[in-house]
Amino acid sequence: MASQSINRKYVFLFSEYDAILAQFDQDWDAVRGLLGGKGANLLDATRLGIPVPPGFTITTDACNDYLATEQTFPDGLWEQNLEAIKMLESLTGKRFGDIENPLLLSCRSGAKFSMPGMMDTILNIGLNDNITARLAARTAMPRFAYDLYRRLVHMFGHVVMDVPEELFEAVITDQRRESGVSSDAELDATAWQAVIARFKEIISRHTGREFPGEPIEQLRLATEAVFRSWNGKRAFDYREAAGIDHRLGTAVSIQTMAFGNVGEDSATGVFMSRNATTGEPVLEGDYLINAQGEDVVAGTRATLPIAQLKTDMPEMFSQLQAIARRLEQHHRNMQDMEFTIEQGKLWLLQTRDGKRTAQAEVRIAVDMVHEELITREEAVARVQPDQVDFFLHPQLDPAALENNQAIARGLNVSPGAAVGVIAFDPDLAVRWAKEEGRDVILVRPETRPDDVHGMLAAKGVVTSKGGRTSHAALVARQFGKPAVVGVEEIEIDLDRHLMRVGPDRVIEEGDFLSIDGNHGLIYHAKLPTVVPDIRNPYLLKILSWADDIRKLGVWTNADYAEDAQRARDYGAEGIGLCRTEHMFFEEGRLQIMQGMILAGTPEEQAEAIALLMPMQRSDFEGLFRAMDGLPVIIRLLDPPLHEFLPPANDLSMEITDLKLRQQQLSSQEEAEQVLEEIEVKRKMLERVELLHEANPMLGTRGVRLGITIPGLYRMQVEAIFDAACRCAADGIDVRPEVMIPLVSHVNEFDVMVGPLRKAAEKIMTKHGMEIPHLFGTMIEIPRAALTAGEIAGSAEFFSFGTNDLTQTTYGISRDDAETGFLVHYLQTRLLQDNPFTSIDPDGVGRLMQMAINEGREARPDLEIGVCGEHGGDPKSIHLCHQLGVNYVSCSPFRVPIARLTAAHAAMKTD
Amino acid sequence: MASQSINRKYVFLFSEYDAILAQFDQDWDAVRGLLGGKGANLLDATRLGIPVPPGFTITTDACNDYLATEQTFPDGLWEQNLEAIKMLESLTGKRFGDIENPLLLSCRSGAKFSMPGMMDTILNIGLNDNITARLAARTAMPRFAYDLYRRLVHMFGHVVMDVPEELFEAVITDQRRESGVSSDAELDATAWQAVIARFKEIISRHTGREFPGEPIEQLRLATEAVFRSWNGKRAFDYREAAGIDHRLGTAVSIQTMAFGNVGEDSATGVFMSRNATTGEPVLEGDYLINAQGEDVVAGTRATLPIAQLKTDMPEMFSQLQAIARRLEQHHRNMQDMEFTIEQGKLWLLQTRDGKRTAQAEVRIAVDMVHEELITREEAVARVQPDQVDFFLHPQLDPAALENNQAIARGLNVSPGAAVGVIAFDPDLAVRWAKEEGRDVILVRPETRPDDVHGMLAAKGVVTSKGGRTSHAALVARQFGKPAVVGVEEIEIDLDRHLMRVGPDRVIEEGDFLSIDGNHGLIYHAKLPTVVPDIRNPYLLKILSWADDIRKLGVWTNADYAEDAQRARDYGAEGIGLCRTEHMFFEEGRLQIMQGMILAGTPEEQAEAIALLMPMQRSDFEGLFRAMDGLPVIIRLLDPPLHEFLPPANDLSMEITDLKLRQQQLSSQEEAEQVLEEIEVKRKMLERVELLHEANPMLGTRGVRLGITIPGLYRMQVEAIFDAACRCAADGIDVRPEVMIPLVSHVNEFDVMVGPLRKAAEKIMTKHGMEIPHLFGTMIEIPRAALTAGEIAGSAEFFSFGTNDLTQTTYGISRDDAETGFLVHYLQTRLLQDNPFTSIDPDGVGRLMQMAINEGREARPDLEIGVCGEHGGDPKSIHLCHQLGVNYVSCSPFRVPIARLTAAHAAMKTD
Repeated sequence: MASQSINRKYVFLFSEYDAILAQFDQDWDAVRGLLGGKGANLLDATRLGIPVPPGFTITTDACNDYLATEQTFPDGLWEQNLEAIKMLESLTGKRFGDIENPLLLSCRSGAKFSMPGMMDTILNIGLNDNITARLAARTAMPRFAYDLYRRLVHMFGHVVMDVPEELFEAVITDQRRESGVSSDAELDATAWQAVIARFKEIISRHTGREFPGEPIEQLRLATEAVFRSWNGKRAFDYREAAGIDHRLGTAVSIQTMAFGNVGEDSATGVFMSRNATTGEPVLEGDYLINAQGEDVVAGTRATLPIAQLKTDMPEMFSQLQAIARRLEQHHRNMQDMEFTIEQGKLWLLQTRDGKRTAQAEVRIAVDMVHEELITREEAVARVQPDQVDFFLHPQLDPAALENNQAIARGLNVSPGAAVGVIAFDPDLAVRWAKEEGRDVILVRPETRPDDVHGMLAAKGVVTSKGGRTSHAALVARQFGKPAVVGVEEIEIDLDRHLMRVGPDRVIEEGDFLSIDGNHGLIYHAKLPTVVPDIRNPYLLKILSWADDIRKLGVWTNADYAEDAQRARDYGAEGIGLCRTEHMFFEEGRLQIMQGMILAGTPEEQAEAIALLMPMQRSDFEGLFRAMDGLPVIIRLLDPPLHEFLPPANDLSMEITDLKLRQQQLSSQEEAEQVLEEIEVKRKMLERVELLHEANPMLGTRGVRLGITIPGLYRMQVEAIFDAACRCAADGIDVRPEVMIPLVSHVNEFDVMVGPLRKAAEKIMTKHGMEIPHLFGTMIEIPRAALTAGEIAGSAEFFSFGTNDLTQTTYGISRDDAETGFLVHYLQTRLLQDNPFTSIDPDGVGRLMQMAINEGREARPDLEIGVCGEHGGDPKSIHLCHQLGVNYVSCSPFRVPIARLTAAHAAMKTD
Repeated sequence: MASQSINRKYVFLFSEYDAILAQFDQDWDAVRGLLGGKGANLLDATRLGIPVPPGFTITTDACNDYLATEQTFPDGLWEQNLEAIKMLESLTGKRFGDIENPLLLSCRSGAKFSMPGMMDTILNIGLNDNITARLAARTAMPRFAYDLYRRLVHMFGHVVMDVPEELFEAVITDQRRESGVSSDAELDATAWQAVIARFKEIISRHTGREFPGEPIEQLRLATEAVFRSWNGKRAFDYREAAGIDHRLGTAVSIQTMAFGNVGEDSATGVFMSRNATTGEPVLEGDYLINAQGEDVVAGTRATLPIAQLKTDMPEMFSQLQAIARRLEQHHRNMQDMEFTIEQGKLWLLQTRDGKRTAQAEVRIAVDMVHEELITREEAVARVQPDQVDFFLHPQLDPAALENNQAIARGLNVSPGAAVGVIAFDPDLAVRWAKEEGRDVILVRPETRPDDVHGMLAAKGVVTSKGGRTSHAALVARQFGKPAVVGVEEIEIDLDRHLMRVGPDRVIEEGDFLSIDGNHGLIYHAKLPTVVPDIRNPYLLKILSWADDIRKLGVWTNADYAEDAQRARDYGAEGIGLCRTEHMFFEEGRLQIMQGMILAGTPEEQAEAIALLMPMQRSDFEGLFRAMDGLPVIIRLLDPPLHEFLPPANDLSMEITDLKLRQQQLSSQEEAEQVLEEIEVKRKMLERVELLHEANPMLGTRGVRLGITIPGLYRMQVEAIFDAACRCAADGIDVRPEVMIPLVSHVNEFDVMVGPLRKAAEKIMTKHGMEIPHLFGTMIEIPRAALTAGEIAGSAEFFSFGTNDLTQTTYGISRDDAETGFLVHYLQTRLLQDNPFTSIDPDGVGRLMQMAINEGREARPDLEIGVCGEHGGDPKSIHLCHQLGVNYVSCSPFRVPIARLTAAHAAMKTD
């Protein structure tokens, strides 16, 4: 990158588009690489015939050569620069450094990718004391002239000469007081002259150098400052974090100044080609008559809505409309633009793709398809999964935001809105949430594993320290809690149970706080929230297009009929996982389940199992009716039995309590009753201790349990088929698929499935019906994946249980790791992704690929799905598409995201 | 198998060897298939010119055809039978059924594989009332004649006609009483005539049929009985269990009787070609002058040692020697033979490969190599791993066994001997063993998971029920406890704390019992035990030959210098696994370790770690000195920290106790001291609770711990290299290899190994030395195997931790499963092998193969070993050889077995 050539062209005029496009063979990406995004866009707009103030761009090559040669301009650069200025002089009829008719320039950095931490803009280059005085006299607008000059000295002093900004601000504040005015707009030419004098003193004192009066020197120093800012700490850190190549370098764009502040026929403004909030196809923006660009943003004067310009300057407005249309058609995207009107002449200063809300993104994408600007595929590609997510999380009510100001901003690490009372202590958060039913926001300097219970109890989390991979950020995202971290403006005083924001505001524990996890904002108020409607017609359109594109099926994990219904509404094409154990925890059932576990004889056990049968049947009936015509995968009981009994500690305590009570009772009868109760608890405790396992994750569960208590799975299968036959009798199209979990050896499946098939046949024969069905298994143990060919000889479908498969493949207990070493691994970037969030492609993904290939070889029509939580994660969905699974199954709320992502995956590989 | 042919030859004379060998092209295996083992051996001996009583064999085809056609003789069989008898008549000059010179025959079953449950021998076929009377008169030996006849009626009645044996025995007992004698030998011809009459009555009464007087009818019925016995229940069950094909069928051998009981020039005996206990190359056996074969076995008369025959009948003895030599040369194995001398003529009745002790096996194999009978490879192949095992387990002292009779026999499910007092209750076993230090034998009807603590506390285990895969058998083998199960003769009365053996013997709890797990015998006595010497010169020879053959290295798992020394003596070629954590549990170190865990600040922690350093260093010095010139793999700390702290329950109890004590103390000073103690325990409890993990197997251990507390591994590496340099300074050839455990992602290894390499360099620089060394990792997590190519980019060696790899690959917690569902799986044969005993080839083995291939691809000189317990298991060693690992590492005691098995594996595949 450091090679130099005497003949090398380092400077391109905006009007030299033909040369540069020919050089790069119309490759805009390469053009942006050389000229930076800003330079390329201005050249492009010039090419389109849009009025852009004349200018030129110094290439990124120049920057790289400058940095590689210990900060000397490469040969030819300065000469080409001067040449380009000459061209501007001839185009504008002004001369750079001329006292009568001075050419003024702006200087801006612009790398290939937009990047914070780079040097800011410097305006009005070309002014000095003499030129300013002459300009003031000549135009009879002294205030205008000195206002331009003070801005130059201020910006140059700060940006190029590294004088702290506060020093300049203080001068202006002083001057306002001195002049007895409250706003900068009221300061006149004399006042600004005084300010300029003091600015120069500050620069001289602070840097030991004078503000350069020579325009050409100003330009040289500004250019060098832009070059150097490429290696500034903030820019460097940003590139590190964002993975941007450090060798790209930055370009510098030099542009003729246009002035919106030369009278009532001048104006300046910013506007979007469409509404950035709603996506409506109308111009949206603000402007000021007789003002400079900064003034619109600063908010010192009340701006006018862009629609007003239609009345004020109808010709100008219609030119803006034409420009917006032209640029949208060219960029095929909504544009965010800056303009200046100088004495009735419209100049476009900048254009770029506009930022917008999720709603706007979706609507604009759909509208642009209808306007034939983009294809359906492009529309689908443009909407990102987290934008769909927006429609599913509560958001702060936009209406309320108009009257409320955020008190601080931090990092938006976990989306959604949360509103509640502040608790500074996790235990307090738990108490308020659990015992008093209050919505709580947990606020901590930072969080540690010990605080997780408080985070779980809270509606949202705020920390004053930490970054995107801090413990708080990771855990909050993990559990879907809206969170804002690293809010440096708040200062938490845990001892006094309060926090300070700025010098004045004190916020106490128990005060209401509202947080906006999407934007990293916090509000000292109890704001209303709204849940955006997933039934947004534009979103539905995008999703329906996504459905046409994707290859991957999207199913859902649902245990109850209402969940199934919701998922179906969201577009789920089947149930990939119904966890039957949840049904056993319900009121009235848990006791029966416990009875089964505590049964002394096989007969007692069988009796308890029989009691559960009609309950299970009615559960399944609900699911089948909701999923009429779609497949329903039901997983037979999976968790270890001890989960259905109280913990040993609780039982010990209860027994102790009962014993104490018994001693205090006088009535013989009551005492005996208590004794009986003690006996029951004792028996339970004994069983709990017997069922205790050192590593329950690797213990007696799934098919291992099924083999130990064969009556249990048989009952479940009977309930499934009895329910299926009853529904079928009502005309429902029932498609049950029975899933046997935790198989690690084909023999486990074979031993289990034989009797289960017989039980199913028996029920169907009883009803005189034949229900189409499958018997299959979860692949959630490495050995199952490694012997998938054998297993597929018996099993009719596979469903990857990627959570457990990750635990065993990685040898990580998720419960332990995610409050322990895994957090450390993610914080130190030892691991890029949490393997429980996104499927690990090299380990787990490789096992999946083996299982898919060998399973399909053994059984070509093998149905293969993924039912772990990964099923709703975009990265994992991409992987699943590549691996060639038939469908992913995710929670109902993730279904729309999965549909969209599956389409993205299909477009990426096709 | 059921096809018949008129021309088929069903009967072969022993002398028709040329025909049959031609037919089967010298394939003895095929000959044995047709004639059975016994028939083939007799034909073969005849071929060798050894005097075998003339006879013939009815083929297994005949049997199969008979069984396939509802028990009718196939066409031609009977005619061929009669023809063969004619040949015998012409060879012997006697006639079957002739009253003057009767031919007497024996009839024996004989399948391809020796099989209990088949029909026994019937002798003396061809006698009836008349023939016997004439024989008595003609030979003037009436007792001889009637003795033969009563044996025929007895055997025929029992074996062919299904009369219970006891009925016959009772008659003889009565007769002895009646005759006033105490042994059968004293009964005269008249007495036997009375017995025969009663036998016939019993047969008639019991079966409704008469004992057949016609010799040819006797032969027909006996032949059919042999055929039918193939499908008898015991034979069928045996074949099921042993995996023998049910379609093989049995042959029947019909042979001329030779009589050792016709005078002082007659004799009968059994002998081995070498000593079956020691392997010495001298004839060994017993004989009786003037007796029948049974008498030698029955023990009713005192037998003479075979050496005595040299004096009694020198010519006969020298013939026996010649026959033994001839047969040994022919079979290239030690022979077990039966002979009869009939009036000065020697007949060989049977020969087969002799059973022998492990010592004898080893010595005979070595001697036969020196005698040039077999090659070294054959000698090595002949010795089995469990025979080497014999040299390592205590055995009952053979001298003591001469004076003690076993009281019962069961299944020999776990080898070795154990001596101790009987406990019928597992809790009692624990109390006696732990509190009173007594050696205990746990005796139970059968064992359950609840009894495991008792089994662990006991020296040996006996059960009256259960088979080879019963819970007791599995657990005993697992933990290396000698065990005899399924001892049906003992009847346990748990209520009265005693057991009965037979009608008379009562054995009480607390009595001494000795058990011989090798042979499944139990003795009601406290017998001395001996440990056979591994330094047996014949074994050493076999092992040195094995070393020449094997490709696989054999290393050892050793944590202490003395273990390392022992393993080296046994032939270990390196240490494959030194578990450093064991060093931390030693006296004086555990407290420091706990101090490190409880440290409040990083400084306190570092201080504690520094204290451990010199201790570790001296541990390593010992190992390096013992393994001078051999590699030593040291695994850095692996277990989770909570293992170094007491269990939470214990701490709670201790705190409670201390509180009670504190309240009772009057002295202020003492009370304060106790308070301090409470504080320490409280802190410990708090940390134990913090360190608690739901699944510690998948938790914060190995490299995860190393990353969390980097100072710990650094200290260990410093200790390793400091020790290495000190040893090297003394001229020791030190080859340390540092192993980082539980890696699942290459980044874990990389993050850890960088600083460790630097620490090692620093120490070596300090000493001014360069120690050759490697840094590598364990492959014990599926993901490590799946990404082995990446990991081998950084790691210089792999060591498969097959125990943990099995746990994670199978998703099985070993601790839980082996007292739970895994026992059930093995009992029901859902799994053929316990995957923790023998490496699962399809799952774990497949992962290993992937890791080996991809690891070597990335690093061709990658050193790959196996350090799980599987390293000492023969099946696993075969697999490891196939997979191409460089070495297996096993416990010192398993090293000789591994050396032998590795040679077997090499011979199998080469």
